[in-house]
Amino acid sequence: MTERCITGKDIEQMEKRFRAAFINSLSGVKSANLIGTCKRRGYLENLAIVSSVVHIGAHPPLLGMIMRPHTVTRDTLENIQHTGIYTINHVGAHQTQAAHQTSARYPSEVSEFEAAGFPPWYADDFDAPFVQSSPVKLAMKLAEIVPIKLNDTQLVIGEITAVWIDQSAITSAGQVDLDTLNVAAVTGLDTYHAIRKIERYPYAKP
Amino acid sequence: MTERCITGKDIEQMEKRFRAAFINSLSGVKSANLIGTCKRRGYLENLAIVSSVVHIGAHPPLLGMIMRPHTVTRDTLENIQHTGIYTINHVGAHQTQAAHQTSARYPSEVSEFEAAGFPPWYADDFDAPFVQSSPVKLAMKLAEIVPIKLNDTQLVIGEITAVWIDQSAITSAGQVDLDTLNVAAVTGLDTYHAIRKIERYPYAKP
Repeated sequence: MTERCITGKDIEQMEKRFRAAFINSLSGVKSANLIGTCKRRGYLENLAIVSSVVHIGAHPPLLGMIMRPHTVTRDTLENIQHTGIYTINHVGAHQTQAAHQTSARYPSEVSEFEAAGFPPWYADDFDAPFVQSSPVKLAMKLAEIVPIKLNDTQLVIGEITAVWIDQSAITSAGQVDLDTLNVAAVTGLDTYHAIRKIERYPYAKP
Repeated sequence: MTERCITGKDIEQMEKRFRAAFINSLSGVKSANLIGTCKRRGYLENLAIVSSVVHIGAHPPLLGMIMRPHTVTRDTLENIQHTGIYTINHVGAHQTQAAHQTSARYPSEVSEFEAAGFPPWYADDFDAPFVQSSPVKLAMKLAEIVPIKLNDTQLVIGEITAVWIDQSAITSAGQVDLDTLNVAAVTGLDTYHAIRKIERYPYAKP
């Protein structure tokens, strides 16, 4: 074990892609989620993988995600702003290669659902496309876009309006068994992992 | 497979703790990080587990985390606001039980470092305490606290000013091998996981 200190100056002097890979690793294990949007129901659908979905609160049920306006997720962000709705779809461990493919810079008129081989699916009463084969599918209504002026990114916050899930994966305590559902995780920019449960611990007391 | 739809109304009517466990599961796999702070170097140290650390940007190197002002992490938030610095320490898969113990509501004068059995460690030039045994230790300088008015939470953004890590875990491309470092992940409120690498995929092209 040769632990060393990498300083802020070292980081500043890293080659750009090396730094992106390094810093993107430092937040730890991340969720692998596919964001489904469209211009209008069934028209100009977009699908983009994100690893920045974060819990904001349970009541009301809010999730956030960090988006960069000038990157591959630009179409996704524009659709969310235009329609006010989107879907969050968990990536299964067997779906990681196809999910990663959605990060390619396709032209706006290309559907990443089609290009990556994920059939879209619509619920009767919700006009954004889900990934049919995803084990956990969330219908989201845009709640607020919080600008992060530090680096011109945005925290996109949505409210969960519906959850499509295998009922048997929800425990009597409300927890979803994501390991049983075989949901994938991601580290850095491009590395995918399965998870193996270590333990569930009781509510901690002093 | 008995997939069903859980509606927003169903969520609203859930028992409070059940809902908290359910909604906290829906963002997917999360990072397990210990946040180290103190009133001043070596005095009134605090350690709190959080699962909301999120990548904000690589240049400058920024990480965010969602904090609730009125919960167990209140001391942590006050210390960050007071000193302007903190540490983020990745939890190893063998450290999950002790890490979870830091979520107990100890009185302010109790150090969770001591209560949970994590010896603190200080770098010469940085006055916030690290978890000595953590495989990835980040020195953080507060950059901005962004209020999220929707539910009275805060996005605490900090800049990475130093990284303590085993040099051999950094690949030639800059990626940190978090699976080799045996870093833990968390789902929901209280369930911990190890990760197993599936694959690293090349930069995706159309």
